[in-house]
Amino acid sequence: MDLTTLSLGQYEFIAGSFSFGLAVMAAATLFLWFSRSLVAPGYRIAVTISGLVTAIAAYHYLQIMLSWDSAFAIVGGSLETTGQPFNQAYRYVDWLLTVPLLLIELILVMKLARGETISKSVWLGGAAALMIILGYPGEVAETAGTRFTFWVLSMIPFIYIVYQLVVGLKGSINKQPENVRGLINGAAMLVVVSWLFYPIVFLFPLIGFTGGAAVVAVEVGYTVADIVAKAVFGILILAIAMRKSEAEGANQQA
Amino acid sequence: MDLTTLSLGQYEFIAGSFSFGLAVMAAATLFLWFSRSLVAPGYRIAVTISGLVTAIAAYHYLQIMLSWDSAFAIVGGSLETTGQPFNQAYRYVDWLLTVPLLLIELILVMKLARGETISKSVWLGGAAALMIILGYPGEVAETAGTRFTFWVLSMIPFIYIVYQLVVGLKGSINKQPENVRGLINGAAMLVVVSWLFYPIVFLFPLIGFTGGAAVVAVEVGYTVADIVAKAVFGILILAIAMRKSEAEGANQQA
Repeated sequence: MDLTTLSLGQYEFIAGSFSFGLAVMAAATLFLWFSRSLVAPGYRIAVTISGLVTAIAAYHYLQIMLSWDSAFAIVGGSLETTGQPFNQAYRYVDWLLTVPLLLIELILVMKLARGETISKSVWLGGAAALMIILGYPGEVAETAGTRFTFWVLSMIPFIYIVYQLVVGLKGSINKQPENVRGLINGAAMLVVVSWLFYPIVFLFPLIGFTGGAAVVAVEVGYTVADIVAKAVFGILILAIAMRKSEAEGANQQA
Repeated sequence: MDLTTLSLGQYEFIAGSFSFGLAVMAAATLFLWFSRSLVAPGYRIAVTISGLVTAIAAYHYLQIMLSWDSAFAIVGGSLETTGQPFNQAYRYVDWLLTVPLLLIELILVMKLARGETISKSVWLGGAAALMIILGYPGEVAETAGTRFTFWVLSMIPFIYIVYQLVVGLKGSINKQPENVRGLINGAAMLVVVSWLFYPIVFLFPLIGFTGGAAVVAVEVGYTVADIVAKAVFGILILAIAMRKSEAEGANQQA
């Protein structure tokens, strides 16, 4: 990523979007954890993990924000790079943790049989981790060929997960109570739609979309996609858990 | 450890892995403590301690991350050492606290008779502390001979603990309810397997495995081993506690 082409306005806009990401993730975390006591005990782990995902993301947005800050200096009113790299690794370590966990949230809130929960968590979570691990060498690669190779490799687990969300989970979703079926479908679709952004952004450098505007599109786009896939998704999980708790007439103690 | 041979990419990868360690440990801590209320009171101390172990580790990964950061400077886009040492002592103080505690987690979740709990905790916990104390003089030793001597001394309690986990606990494990026997055995084996990494890494400098790649292998390897032995292990302890609570039909209050 060529940071030297950024204008001062673009630099500040991206810094603002990272700060926005941090604030949204931290607020979502507190909201989710405060709401734990509103759902039946059987759904608390799903809600706890939803809050963990946004907490982990909040931490990484702090790291990303600090790394962004240290990569630039404003000298005499104009923007200069300091030579400190803007560390992309934070996004990948964040995703390595949060992407498997958010799939597990969705599985847990469906409250399937234990064996099904474990096998779906292992397969979907494992595929998600593999997808991130295969993406990283491409992200830091020097050549377009390597970047493209790892994009292709990373797309294999990606397509597997999307297939599972759109087709594979259908049977389990249809066994859910009617009043939450739509919400669960919506949560699965939210994941699929917000995820489409990532592999497209990954290809930007290969299609010649570079320079300041590309950096803005990538960083702001990742931030928006993260907010949708983690904070908005987490709140949907909470809503599902609350509806199911109500329907089960569970004893909801604080 | 010769830090001057590291490339900028290696430096950043290690920094990322420390940040990953911190995030995993902190997330595991919150998850474990939030889940305390889901297990019967008799198992809460085991789950509390599981969270303490990861909390202590999170604190030390923060210290390790800061120490790593202060040992290097990026000058004009290339990596230089600042002369500030990267402090290995943090790993040893971490282990001195967490390794006895994680063995105690395992003993507590089995809910043995009080006398057996105390004697096993003292023996296994004491041996673990001794193992760490004997390892440290070797870690900071100037000569290969001293390093090797303390490796041998440290291996005595190490082998004692592994023997206890593989053979000594068999009787107690066989008295556990059938639905958790496999999980408890799995937890004990997880400790043994993840621990094998440490004495091997300790020998790296003696077998001539040095330079940038060795530093990456050691630091990333320790981080992965710590995550397995503390966070993954802690979640297994929680799973055992939840299953035993369910089986006992315990009153699970929030």
